[in-house]
Amino acid sequence: MKDDFATLWGGGLDPTAGKTLQRQLHTKIRTSILDGKLAGGTRLPASRMLAGRLGVARITVVQAYDQLVAEGYLEARTGAGTFVASGTPDQLTQTTSPSPSNGAFAPARPQHTLLSGMPALDQFPTAIWARTTSRAMRKLDTNLMYHSDVMGFEPLRRNVASYLQASRSAVCDVSQIMIVTGLQQGLFLLAKTVLQSEAPIILEDPGYDGMLASANASGHPVRYTSVDDYGALPPRETQGLLVTSPSRQYPLGYTMPHSRRLELLDWARRTDSLVFEDDYDSEFRYAGHPLNSLQGIDGGQRVIYGGTFSKSLFPALRLGYLVLPKHMIEQVARFRSATDSFPSIGGQIALNAFMEDGDFTRHIRRLRMIHAKRKNLFTNFADTHLKRFLDFQPSDAGLHLLAYSRGELLDFGLSDGKLASLAQNAGIGAVPVSNCFQFAPRRQGLLAGFANLPDKTIEMVVKKFAHAIHMVLDTTTK
Amino acid sequence: MKDDFATLWGGGLDPTAGKTLQRQLHTKIRTSILDGKLAGGTRLPASRMLAGRLGVARITVVQAYDQLVAEGYLEARTGAGTFVASGTPDQLTQTTSPSPSNGAFAPARPQHTLLSGMPALDQFPTAIWARTTSRAMRKLDTNLMYHSDVMGFEPLRRNVASYLQASRSAVCDVSQIMIVTGLQQGLFLLAKTVLQSEAPIILEDPGYDGMLASANASGHPVRYTSVDDYGALPPRETQGLLVTSPSRQYPLGYTMPHSRRLELLDWARRTDSLVFEDDYDSEFRYAGHPLNSLQGIDGGQRVIYGGTFSKSLFPALRLGYLVLPKHMIEQVARFRSATDSFPSIGGQIALNAFMEDGDFTRHIRRLRMIHAKRKNLFTNFADTHLKRFLDFQPSDAGLHLLAYSRGELLDFGLSDGKLASLAQNAGIGAVPVSNCFQFAPRRQGLLAGFANLPDKTIEMVVKKFAHAIHMVLDTTTK
Repeated sequence: MKDDFATLWGGGLDPTAGKTLQRQLHTKIRTSILDGKLAGGTRLPASRMLAGRLGVARITVVQAYDQLVAEGYLEARTGAGTFVASGTPDQLTQTTSPSPSNGAFAPARPQHTLLSGMPALDQFPTAIWARTTSRAMRKLDTNLMYHSDVMGFEPLRRNVASYLQASRSAVCDVSQIMIVTGLQQGLFLLAKTVLQSEAPIILEDPGYDGMLASANASGHPVRYTSVDDYGALPPRETQGLLVTSPSRQYPLGYTMPHSRRLELLDWARRTDSLVFEDDYDSEFRYAGHPLNSLQGIDGGQRVIYGGTFSKSLFPALRLGYLVLPKHMIEQVARFRSATDSFPSIGGQIALNAFMEDGDFTRHIRRLRMIHAKRKNLFTNFADTHLKRFLDFQPSDAGLHLLAYSRGELLDFGLSDGKLASLAQNAGIGAVPVSNCFQFAPRRQGLLAGFANLPDKTIEMVVKKFAHAIHMVLDTTTK
Repeated sequence: MKDDFATLWGGGLDPTAGKTLQRQLHTKIRTSILDGKLAGGTRLPASRMLAGRLGVARITVVQAYDQLVAEGYLEARTGAGTFVASGTPDQLTQTTSPSPSNGAFAPARPQHTLLSGMPALDQFPTAIWARTTSRAMRKLDTNLMYHSDVMGFEPLRRNVASYLQASRSAVCDVSQIMIVTGLQQGLFLLAKTVLQSEAPIILEDPGYDGMLASANASGHPVRYTSVDDYGALPPRETQGLLVTSPSRQYPLGYTMPHSRRLELLDWARRTDSLVFEDDYDSEFRYAGHPLNSLQGIDGGQRVIYGGTFSKSLFPALRLGYLVLPKHMIEQVARFRSATDSFPSIGGQIALNAFMEDGDFTRHIRRLRMIHAKRKNLFTNFADTHLKRFLDFQPSDAGLHLLAYSRGELLDFGLSDGKLASLAQNAGIGAVPVSNCFQFAPRRQGLLAGFANLPDKTIEMVVKKFAHAIHMVLDTTTK
């Protein structure tokens, strides 16, 4: 990907030409956008990196980007990077409002992207949560005020351990549970502590770009392992930290069979490697039984398990957990103590009380039914209105559906970046699946969130999305 | 320090001797403890580092440490490292209970160290906080549930910006405020983003060991600059990130005059360097007026300001803030997005409401009076009971007092590590000041917390501490 950009713009930058290098680069990027080589939503390389690859000063790239931002071709999103603006340059759709009338799933900011992996946030028991929090806060005594366990609040960790033993066959005790802000922090902590300094982080290809961002930030080299119908293949690397999502491969949705799990563990043993099990939405399986976690099969020797409350409760809670093999605890905790300490006690004691009261289990059980219903509604309406354009993959788990572009869409060459922005405008949390690919043959399609769409809005948003696609195809072929 | 250990134990490890290397190292460390070369509370070097310096396998060090932990000579504290056990080997004191009868400042765990920099946690308005939190939580709608601004909750950031403009003459707007878990996270984020990869982090010597831990974790080389009566001297380094505490130098307590502030800024400009202003407890000044922040003088070009709610509210809240120069925002935010995201929304909205309601300002104002009173009480009782042993330095700010060992204590050679454990046992949050020194001539003494001692307990704990010192001197000279 990085090299693609250098190839796209590197040739022909000429310091002796009449125009400045900045102006030349500006023109090249603008042309790439105008002729469709760069789809809306595409992330541009960091200025430092691109400058290095083009052999120009960083300021040249920064100024070219800045100008394109000012002209509306690019968008700088704080904390995420610089992106090709959606809908640019031809304002593909006629939809005016970026958010549907029902405020329940309106974005927090106009430019905010609807996420595809959201649970039914409209069904969150806010009143119970507020009451539970209030009760927990009234017990905030001086001991809790200077609580200082970097592993997290021990009663919460005990509840997490019990939950994982029961629901994921995890082999662990409370000492191994570390409360984290999320799985990207989890990967970063592991990379900075228990992974040898030159060893690679091995990601699934296709895979989750959030993990790629965290892996890159850690400074470790990044490698990839392919995915077949059974999930990740054992890597070719002779050592490293493999990040895998066996419960439900992201983005393809495969559940890894037991045999493949054993192969991965065998690879880890043979090569003295580590495995980070990213179990991001395993709570939501709508048919069949979940398989035992890799961590459970391994017994917690080489597998670090990671889970999150972002999907089961809500993402801004920023609470997740790691199950660390015992010999890693001290090293990870020491680094974390030096660089981050631990998540605020308030959220931890509230969540602990929510679990103690049985509200967590009740909420998950309820969400499973709600999500299953929404999946069926969404699938049915999509079958009626979107089948021509999108090939929805069967799935019995998770919070989003994978759909590959097909037929007219492919013929027309509408990029999935543009497609995702049409879905977003219609009110469907969607990300282009092509973003997930590195070296594997890139496919076009969407990860479309269904779980956070209130039942009664599903027909409307699906139709709106289908209408927007029709508009694009009609308008442009005229 | 690291080299001290290698010198202490390195000579004479002999792989051809009858005893294993592990056994030899075990004996050497044990002897260092028994003959008093290693004081209780001393942190041992990380096993990997010591192994490197001694030229032995890491497992050798790990096993030697493990055995000493099993024998009670060392303590492994999760997330903090391996320490010489307090009171070992001669069980210096007869005090039996580690915590005073008043539970208000009892340690959360038996082995927990009372921190010296604690505010009056017994005076925290828990009922108001619980009510405010509950009210904030009832407003938790789906927008807040998928809030995703890595800079933090914008209304809170706006309140922080106003507070800093008014109270610290900070030059900033809301876009520059990043909510963090604390100042060590702040330093780590800066080190990983805006500091050139080989550039040093320059710490004050003496200084805060928490910053040293964060600096080391970042992988940057660490250098030191000396401290005189005006605070940190301009570093000799020709580039880097200087960490300084001008409001109240830690641990010496000096307030940096304006002239020195200008010298530091001049150094930063000349060398194209950065300054991290650690303003850890500037809220608590009991006489005179605070000087403008370095950030305010600089105008936010080269100075990154950091503050925390750990001292003004309570440490387990884990909320603090950075004021980032505008050109740094995107880079810091991107790294943070990849590796940590942001603190849980709950604590942020609760704190925001607490500030909106004026409760924050009221609480700080009230604490100032309470702390001033406790400081006077503590100073008076210390003058009566501890003057023989400890030379308390005058101070009109902060949450702890600095006292140097003197007279009999020095003659006797009681280390401040042991002294701190006597203070801890008596119920006074205390840390040995010698821990703060690197190359500067090391002094013995204590940082003794006064602010978190309820008024009526102060006389008792001071007397108890004095009694414990008498016991040690008497018992051992018999």
